Parts: sequence; C-alpha cells; structure tokens
Amino acid sequence: MNQPSVISPGARGPVDHDIRDQIVAAANEHFSQYGYGKTTVSDLAKAIGFSKAYIYKFFDSKQAIGEAICANCLSTIVAAVEKAINEEGLSATERFRRLVKTVVATGVDLFFNDRKLYDIAAFSASEHWPSSQVYNAQIKSFVLQIVREGRELGEFERKTPLDETVDAIHLALRPFVNPLLLQYNLDFVEQAPTLTSNLILRSLMP
Amino acid sequence: MNQPSVISPGARGPVDHDIRDQIVAAANEHFSQYGYGKTTVSDLAKAIGFSKAYIYKFFDSKQAIGEAICANCLSTIVAAVEKAINEEGLSATERFRRLVKTVVATGVDLFFNDRKLYDIAAFSASEHWPSSQVYNAQIKSFVLQIVREGRELGEFERKTPLDETVDAIHLALRPFVNPLLLQYNLDFVEQAPTLTSNLILRSLMP
Repeated sequence: MNQPSVISPGARGPVDHDIRDQIVAAANEHFSQYGYGKTTVSDLAKAIGFSKAYIYKFFDSKQAIGEAICANCLSTIVAAVEKAINEEGLSATERFRRLVKTVVATGVDLFFNDRKLYDIAAFSASEHWPSSQVYNAQIKSFVLQIVREGRELGEFERKTPLDETVDAIHLALRPFVNPLLLQYNLDFVEQAPTLTSNLILRSLMP
Repeated sequence: MNQPSVISPGARGPVDHDIRDQIVAAANEHFSQYGYGKTTVSDLAKAIGFSKAYIYKFFDSKQAIGEAICANCLSTIVAAVEKAINEEGLSATERFRRLVKTVVATGVDLFFNDRKLYDIAAFSASEHWPSSQVYNAQIKSFVLQIVREGRELGEFERKTPLDETVDAIHLALRPFVNPLLLQYNLDFVEQAPTLTSNLILRSLMP
C-alpha cells in the first residue's frame, strides 16, 4: 500500500501554494472527464499546459495529486455534515438523524454527479489513503460528539462504555460513509438512512 | 442483468440428475482452481471430459453452472447458521449472537479457503442471481424467527413494527452477509460480530 505524500518544502511561499491549487483544480477537471486510473502524469501535463517536470516540482506522483483532489472532495462531505448537525437548538437525536442523512445524500450526490471523482474517492478508501483516513476520523468524531452530548442531556443511555458505543455506530454507518461500499448500497439509500438511524437510536435509548 | 436458468425438463430421471451433479462437482473443482471469469464452457468441457454439446444438454450457459455451484456454496452457510441457532435451550439473544458469528465465520472461511468459489458467490451477489436472493431471504427469515421468538418470550421490545425491526437488522448485517461486501470488511471481522450484535441487541431491549 503506497501512502502518497504531498511535497511541501518549508521555503515555498503563497505563490507556490497558488500553483499547487491550480494544478489540483486542472487535474480535478481532467480526471473527472477522463478518469483517474487511465490518466498518466504526462497526459495530465499535456492537458493542463504545464510541463511534466513542473508538475513534479509540486507533487511527487500522480497519487499525490489524486490524494489532494480526494481530500477536497471528502472535505465537502464533512463540511455538509458539520453544517447540518451544528444548527442551533437541535436535540442529539435530531443531530444524529441529520448526520446519517447528510452523509448518504452528499455521497450519493457525488456518485451520480461526479462519477469519476467518486471513483478516486472509492479508490482512496480501498487503499487507505490519508485523505480517506482523515475523513473517517472526522465522521467518527461527529458521532462521538453527538453521543457524548446525548448522554450528558440524558437523551441517550450511559451504561455502555462510550468508546464501544461510538465504534459500533461508526461500524454500522460504514456502508454509507465509505465511498467504496456506498456504491454497492445504492439500492438501499432511500430506506437506509431512516431504518439505520431508527435502529441505532433505539440502541441508544436510556 | 441475466438471470441464469437451469434446464430441468420434466421427463428426466434420476440418472440425468446424477450427471448434472457430476458436472457441477467437476465444474466446482475446475473453477476453484482456475476461476470462474476466465473459464469458457469449452475449457470446462475439455477439463472434465464431457463434450461441450453434452454439457449444454444439462445447463443452458456457463452462468447456469455457476449458479448451481453458488447455490451449493451459499447453502453451506445457511446450513451452518441453521445448526448454530437451532440448538436446544438457547435464549433469543444467544441465538442472535450465534447467527451473526456463524454468518461471518463461514463467509470468512470460504473467502480464505476457497477464494475462487468465493468470487463466484460475490459475483452472484453483484448480479442478483437467484441463488444469492434465496440466500438473502433465508438469512432474513432466520432474523425474523429470532426476533419474533424474542418478542414472544418478552426478551425483546414490541413497540417497533416487526417488519421495520427485521428490515433494519437485515440491513445492518448486510456488510457481513453479502459476499460482495464481506471482502471489504475483512479488517473488521474480529470485532464486528460482537460490536454489531451488541448494538442490535441494545436496540431490541424492552
């Protein structure tokens, strides 16, 4: 398993940062049209009008570019979830329902509207890229936050060790959180958020 | 989606049945060595010493042979589960734990010990072959049986509609029941049976 690493030499300033962003944006567009798997860095360089050597000044591999794209793409899901669950005045129960609904909806949306990008995200999940690990950890931290709050407010039971509850919920949500698995669960995305949320919320009852 | 159909003309007697079984057994061995995807009916005929025309007298396609193999293979899992949960004197809770444990253990065993056969089962799940649908329905009927019994004995809550409870549990077990998904969940097969069973059992508490 190769873990892609993004070159980020300390001496580089904001201009380099802009160029990196430009490469990522151009690669994003190129990959979402032609796919990630079949595109080489040479193809990409040609298509976006930079030399291959120039691209390699900023990224040490195609995977490092894919990783940057993937991180952007998964952070869109995280941002949508964060917004949905952090609205004022919601109960922990309602926050949890929103978490599940938003993860599924944004994942499915990505799948149907940007299939090639989705494939990069699924690939990153299968290869345990850092972007996919960060994403997983963020979703899990939302689960932890909601369960903890629900326990403090007396909405949820407190007998089960907190980490067991959070691990079990995170595992139960995996078919919808993990892009690699979501594509096999598309037949269930209508009913799953409600059925799964209801089951988990019943398990949390005091 | 092609649904394979097995030719079973009314007039054929037990001898034909034996020959079918022989073809399935030989194909089973051949596929588990060379894989299902790359083998043609001609390859298979040559390898098992029947003419291609003769094989086609019994099965109308390679898929029909694969389907018969798959049905055998999935019925092994079902038989193991049935045996595990139907032992005398178990509580519904204990039956449920055994269901989950046995599904995961036999699926994982198949994956590691007969990878090529497992791949046929995964393929059958992705294509919704009848064998895979029957398997799914059988696992679901075990869930129904256990939940109903647990409700009657006062072990499980009765407020949630029975079909919602069963659908939700069946969905929660899908990553481990479905061979297509199980292969992506191998990192979790140690902890998942306990974590998932505990969560589901908490959701069933009266």
